[in-house]
Amino acid sequence: MSLSLVSSNRCFSGTQYIYRHASAATQTDMTFAAYIPPQAEKGPCPALFFLSGLTCSEENATVKAGYQRLAAELGLVVIAPDTSPRGDTVANDERYFLGQAASFYVNATQDPWAAHFQMERYIAEELYDLVLGALPVQAGKIGITGHSMGGHGALTLAMRHPERFASLSAFAPVVAPSQVEWGQVAFAAYLGENTDAWAEHDACALVLSRGWKGDMLIDQGDADAFLETNLRTPLFEAACQQAGQSAQIRYQPGYDHSYYFVASFIEDHMRFHAERLTA
Amino acid sequence: MSLSLVSSNRCFSGTQYIYRHASAATQTDMTFAAYIPPQAEKGPCPALFFLSGLTCSEENATVKAGYQRLAAELGLVVIAPDTSPRGDTVANDERYFLGQAASFYVNATQDPWAAHFQMERYIAEELYDLVLGALPVQAGKIGITGHSMGGHGALTLAMRHPERFASLSAFAPVVAPSQVEWGQVAFAAYLGENTDAWAEHDACALVLSRGWKGDMLIDQGDADAFLETNLRTPLFEAACQQAGQSAQIRYQPGYDHSYYFVASFIEDHMRFHAERLTA
Repeated sequence: MSLSLVSSNRCFSGTQYIYRHASAATQTDMTFAAYIPPQAEKGPCPALFFLSGLTCSEENATVKAGYQRLAAELGLVVIAPDTSPRGDTVANDERYFLGQAASFYVNATQDPWAAHFQMERYIAEELYDLVLGALPVQAGKIGITGHSMGGHGALTLAMRHPERFASLSAFAPVVAPSQVEWGQVAFAAYLGENTDAWAEHDACALVLSRGWKGDMLIDQGDADAFLETNLRTPLFEAACQQAGQSAQIRYQPGYDHSYYFVASFIEDHMRFHAERLTA
Repeated sequence: MSLSLVSSNRCFSGTQYIYRHASAATQTDMTFAAYIPPQAEKGPCPALFFLSGLTCSEENATVKAGYQRLAAELGLVVIAPDTSPRGDTVANDERYFLGQAASFYVNATQDPWAAHFQMERYIAEELYDLVLGALPVQAGKIGITGHSMGGHGALTLAMRHPERFASLSAFAPVVAPSQVEWGQVAFAAYLGENTDAWAEHDACALVLSRGWKGDMLIDQGDADAFLETNLRTPLFEAACQQAGQSAQIRYQPGYDHSYYFVASFIEDHMRFHAERLTA
């Protein structure tokens, strides 16, 4: 599998790359961002996957979150994938929470989505193996985080693939997709009406059924317009308490759902991951 | 004159505001970004104007430069204006370096530009006075910086209004508009063919005719695709040397013209201004 370079920009003494490649999982071309810190000149580094939210691509976090400064300081590679397959031949929907840029990071089993929406396999297997093979990334030292739908992706992919991810955090994650409109619409479309299948991709259900092997850090703005409707962080707090799951869940006063919130707390998350990945 | 709030986002314990207001200078509505740091709760703070480059609005620096983190640490208000008047009734051009988003921060004297392109008056007088009156900004403690065309704006407005600006820096500025395509096209359109008028808005000419009262910091990427054609930093180095002007001009190896470059060095610039504005 070969990587095609889209762009390359010097940033904080490292380099911000955008790559494109043909994906076997999604049967489309896929684009992702890879920040390579200056420490990579001396050898492979730990890496952090950042999964983005609804309406986003690999670009949003890469230009808005400010992760490069910390990555350069801490010696972390940062991989920011796109949020879904894209293109004229790929199924889509007019609603912003279904279809292109709204994969919810599952492998769809239902038509017309199954042909391309294989994002769990893409992220946790194909892209994961690709960056291990093609970029200066240390095996076994890969963490995962994400924002909103990407926070859901981080929580669920980490709990479903604990052998692949070594540290976990999330910004304003969708924690109970089976219980909120965004997730119910997406899961019904991608996975069908059998809610047993949904539970395998619902962080609140997974923390009870599988749990997570380590601790985790979650930040949530208390002025987030989606908190009461689609995020519902207290459900995850309750599930963690019931499961005895270690989780630091912080409500940040006055913060909303934007990248201004993510940028404000990216440093804490990067340090959280670096401590666990370099231990 | 009243400010209309477009958006407000909590960011690094302060608030990122976007405001709109009717401008007497441009005879249009104008939009600007204002970051208010947490220190403003206790009283007025020094402020930094950030002027943006061609094709940009107030948004680019505000979401990409990462200035809020430093502004919050240092207690600086940051004002990021738009780069020109805009609208269907405002003159424009197909070239990206003339017309809307390409004001070059001058007061146009030529038709069809003169009706709205009064950006020097807008920035250095109207908006300046507006933020002093309406926002928690300390009189006499306002610095100015900018990127590319906005770097030109910072250098020329500071030298033309030394009583208004107390500190000066620039990222990859257009230093000799009279000698490069971007500036020649814009100045001919806005100011007419008399190049005596151009010299009053050309940093290389101004540093010889007026100079700047203090020191200044300029960063320029040595891999910037516009360095040889439209930026030509060495001309400004030579002019400063000839004029005996104090200026720290740094060539940053491998950096290009993007906001990845600006973000990499914004901390140095913010600290440079804070030291001079809080002295």
